Amino acid sequence: MSLIVQKFGGSSVANAERVMNVARIVTDTYKKGNSVVVVVSAQGDTTDDLIEKANEINPNASKREKDMLLAAGEQISISLLAMAIEKLGYPVVSLLGWQAGFQTSSAYTSARIKRVNTDRIMKELDKKNIVVVAGFQGINRYNDVTTLGRGGSDTSAVAIAAATNADLCQIYTDVEGVYTADPRKVKNARKLDIISYDEMLELATLGAQVLNNRSVEMAKKYNIELEVLSSMTNAPGTIVKEAVKMEKMLVSGVAKDTNVARISVIGVPDVPGLAFKLFSKLASKKINVDIILQSIGRDGTKDILFTVAKENGKEAVKLMEDFIDVVGGKEVNISENVAKISIVGAGMESHSGVATKMFEALYDAQINIQMISTSEIKISVLIDAYDADNAVSAIHSKFFDEN
Amino acid sequence: MSLIVQKFGGSSVANAERVMNVARIVTDTYKKGNSVVVVVSAQGDTTDDLIEKANEINPNASKREKDMLLAAGEQISISLLAMAIEKLGYPVVSLLGWQAGFQTSSAYTSARIKRVNTDRIMKELDKKNIVVVAGFQGINRYNDVTTLGRGGSDTSAVAIAAATNADLCQIYTDVEGVYTADPRKVKNARKLDIISYDEMLELATLGAQVLNNRSVEMAKKYNIELEVLSSMTNAPGTIVKEAVKMEKMLVSGVAKDTNVARISVIGVPDVPGLAFKLFSKLASKKINVDIILQSIGRDGTKDILFTVAKENGKEAVKLMEDFIDVVGGKEVNISENVAKISIVGAGMESHSGVATKMFEALYDAQINIQMISTSEIKISVLIDAYDADNAVSAIHSKFFDEN
Repeated sequence: MSLIVQKFGGSSVANAERVMNVARIVTDTYKKGNSVVVVVSAQGDTTDDLIEKANEINPNASKREKDMLLAAGEQISISLLAMAIEKLGYPVVSLLGWQAGFQTSSAYTSARIKRVNTDRIMKELDKKNIVVVAGFQGINRYNDVTTLGRGGSDTSAVAIAAATNADLCQIYTDVEGVYTADPRKVKNARKLDIISYDEMLELATLGAQVLNNRSVEMAKKYNIELEVLSSMTNAPGTIVKEAVKMEKMLVSGVAKDTNVARISVIGVPDVPGLAFKLFSKLASKKINVDIILQSIGRDGTKDILFTVAKENGKEAVKLMEDFIDVVGGKEVNISENVAKISIVGAGMESHSGVATKMFEALYDAQINIQMISTSEIKISVLIDAYDADNAVSAIHSKFFDEN
Repeated sequence: MSLIVQKFGGSSVANAERVMNVARIVTDTYKKGNSVVVVVSAQGDTTDDLIEKANEINPNASKREKDMLLAAGEQISISLLAMAIEKLGYPVVSLLGWQAGFQTSSAYTSARIKRVNTDRIMKELDKKNIVVVAGFQGINRYNDVTTLGRGGSDTSAVAIAAATNADLCQIYTDVEGVYTADPRKVKNARKLDIISYDEMLELATLGAQVLNNRSVEMAKKYNIELEVLSSMTNAPGTIVKEAVKMEKMLVSGVAKDTNVARISVIGVPDVPGLAFKLFSKLASKKINVDIILQSIGRDGTKDILFTVAKENGKEAVKLMEDFIDVVGGKEVNISENVAKISIVGAGMESHSGVATKMFEALYDAQINIQMISTSEIKISVLIDAYDADNAVSAIHSKFFDEN
């Protein structure tokens, strides 16, 4: 008799057959005596179709109207899933974001959940209804429809789990769980039975793309146990939970991120406060900087290299060019032909030699390292994009095949 | 400086080009200094597409979930129209049924508007916004989404016009106004400049299909001046208003309705109260009866014939068969091969000979009359469906070509 939140992404409800499949998973859970809240994304291509319709009319439409348009996508998927559950003979009710109590900030297209008023959801659960909730959407204080941005449905699911004090939040995807590396690329990639929030956060940030980062942060904050699993198989997935009692693995996974641009600011004056001024410029435009490398000063000048997301590359170059016009400097370069490869593992903190092992794997594969960045539970290197898949395989087999 | 409500049907917003066309009509009205509320239906085939999606999953889905699904259609069209208006550089805001204050009964798929709380609409108009409202939809007292059934967007528009005390309610369609007969079928059909609510009601009921009946009833009740006009041309349309100061035309129009089935209940006992019992049976199943004809009693029995909408035909036959099993009777027949032809005109009341003229036209065309029904402003005849178009042409030219 648990309260379980289940979330299904757009590909899991892409057509009638898959909607029926999801209905069976949901009702199987309900049949066992559980209360079930289901969070659904828009069907497969619906969002893209709607964006195309909008672009035909006005590519520069306001974000408010974009949210109004996109929110129709989940409205379609929740009602279809509810109809499928009705067909299987179970009591069900679908709820839009505003009906389910999702109150958000007013930042259209990337709103933050402020509060989930669960009155309606709890009332429906009391009536023994399966509750199907539109993910990704809510309303702001003006009663206007908002959306949460990419991966928002994961966040919706965790937010409901937190607000209803659910026992488990299952995130159904098209993979069977969290792997030690991308299983489509690395032959020996292994599914993890369990992973900590922090490791999952590093993996999500680093491009593993299994779980949305905000949802993991929220799960960590409210201590919601997550399970990542596939809607296509019956296999158990990966549990994401607090690390306290976990046996620490040395390394949990290897991740690749190709959405990286490297900016080089060459020959700037080697004077105090320069780095501060430089990164303030970027922060003022809300550009996140990832890896930073600064050369040793020589002849009164130094070089500063950093990475940003590809979409911020051009703006960062422009800012840096303006910057060296003022403080002095030789030139600004950008390279988009790079990839960031990272290993993540809570075991790293207490084991030396992890970095060495990673570098050895890259050396064996004759892959050159451009930049290095480390944290307590992760090590990232920047390499040529061309070498990315090889690097992941080499590192993965170093850590996982040599046991 | 008037407040004008404009309603556009699904074909008027069927694609990007037409949405832009509607945006131009709306902004032209706004530019002249008017406050504008626009009511829009779902785009062209959206509703049909959504129904198909639902039927693939569960043809017997609950009406609640059907309404949840269908309401997504107007959500898409209002946001697209708002984007088009933004593109033309005008301030605009789109509102869903619940945001626009539409409170309805709980009869899913055919809800009645109980009240329009115009607070939000008036606030947006005060801010000089063009307000685009989703027609056809509202919410009930459980905060669940409802739809108003066929032609509901017309009713939405008139309800807003009534609640905001608008100066004019323009119903844009794909015809230029109300005609003396169907212009696609009758060559000399003339557009009417003006018509009374009552005449329009008879025409709407009789299958002219220009305006939804409930919307005309509501316009009459709240004395809202309607204009029916085309979104494709600039031509002035037909004004629908109170008849008081109108010069009465003898006959306003000729209409055809082929959605008719004739039921014959043959040889029932000629005793008092029988007709009452018979029609009570139909009323208890909410089957509307239109024309009624009762033969003179002979040999202690009589025949009762009546018409119903085609979709009620089978159920009516079943009810009548059960009925004669109890009270006695010979047999029950149904004919779906019939059409109802009607002439409507406020002038009829004071002019004798209108019926004669109509019957003469049918006689000249050698068309047999099966049943006749009259009211103060209309005369209807039931004829063979095969003769329907000929009958309309013959009657139309009798009244409109002989002037």
